[in-house]
Amino acid sequence: MTPAELAERLRLVVITDRELARPRRVEDVAAEAVLAGARAVQLRNKGDGARELLQVGRTLRALTSAAGALLFVNDRLDVALAIEADGVHLGPDDLPVGPARRVVPEGFLIGCSADEADVAAGLVRQGADYVGCGSVYATTTKADAGRVIGLEGLERVAREVRVPVVGIGGITPARAAEVALTGASGVAVVGAVMGAADVSEAVRTLLAPWR
Amino acid sequence: MTPAELAERLRLVVITDRELARPRRVEDVAAEAVLAGARAVQLRNKGDGARELLQVGRTLRALTSAAGALLFVNDRLDVALAIEADGVHLGPDDLPVGPARRVVPEGFLIGCSADEADVAAGLVRQGADYVGCGSVYATTTKADAGRVIGLEGLERVAREVRVPVVGIGGITPARAAEVALTGASGVAVVGAVMGAADVSEAVRTLLAPWR
Repeated sequence: MTPAELAERLRLVVITDRELARPRRVEDVAAEAVLAGARAVQLRNKGDGARELLQVGRTLRALTSAAGALLFVNDRLDVALAIEADGVHLGPDDLPVGPARRVVPEGFLIGCSADEADVAAGLVRQGADYVGCGSVYATTTKADAGRVIGLEGLERVAREVRVPVVGIGGITPARAAEVALTGASGVAVVGAVMGAADVSEAVRTLLAPWR
Repeated sequence: MTPAELAERLRLVVITDRELARPRRVEDVAAEAVLAGARAVQLRNKGDGARELLQVGRTLRALTSAAGALLFVNDRLDVALAIEADGVHLGPDDLPVGPARRVVPEGFLIGCSADEADVAAGLVRQGADYVGCGSVYATTTKADAGRVIGLEGLERVAREVRVPVVGIGGITPARAAEVALTGASGVAVVGAVMGAADVSEAVRTLLAPWR
């Protein structure tokens, strides 16, 4: 997959969250999001063991494959390999990209987190296929989300690296348009889709600025 | 490695625990244990992220390789692959052995937990190379250790399966001799080595009944 093709799939990355999805199952919310046009899903059910992630991940694999959407797993590269996900997303406490790259098959996608341009560039040199960049806005979804870099911070990273850069952190449907102006390839959201009253509407609004 | 060769290495599996090792580092306790004759170490630092496990794991890999000892990683198959460990230990909340087997190289060892003979036999059919069986005694080390099966329970499992069976749960140097009489291949311990005032002495006493 070329960076341009990958960028096109990463317009919207729907990250799962069991708590925010309640009383719905994350699989059902993800299914609705994919039907509404999301072309990337990231499995990140905090606190779940590998066996539980495997079970949810297999359902997500089936529905993303059927829709031509990408599936990533947060942190757990082993679960990603076991369910034949398209890739893994690795944060600062997870495996570094280099050691991860050495144990995955050709073409397996690795995304990394960075909040600064030079860090992002370093991760790309080490083999990252895309960069998740934030927090763009203040957020309460992820306790370890780190500092707020704003639209300007996202723009700096997007300008620096040649792989797709996806904004993350506090992004809502109402904010999608201004995020799209930074040069980022797309947005990754947790609450904006998992917690949405109308999932399809949220997905369409988040995707609209890139259409 | 034949089951007999593996059994010989699994006489004593030293499981790491950051808290019990304090104020020493687990790497230092493990190094002393290996020097005293332990030929298997399992990395299980509860609460550590993959990056931290990788760092400790690389040190453990170097010292176990130098001593001809096996290195296993608990749960995190991805970390095990990244550090070129000899194998992984998978508990009931971790990846099942089948999916794990499909993503590992030839010869990679997979251990599984079982407290009943029929469960153990099933895991061996699915590809387990050894079985961790317990809790043999009541233990406070692991909150999720499950029920106490006693020496009789361990003996039933050891009789049932053709792969090495390692007793776990509450095993102390003083109890090693009676565990050896069950037909188990060895013992896995956390506190008995990680928390030992004299690590070398603990290792020698735990190994003595099999000598």
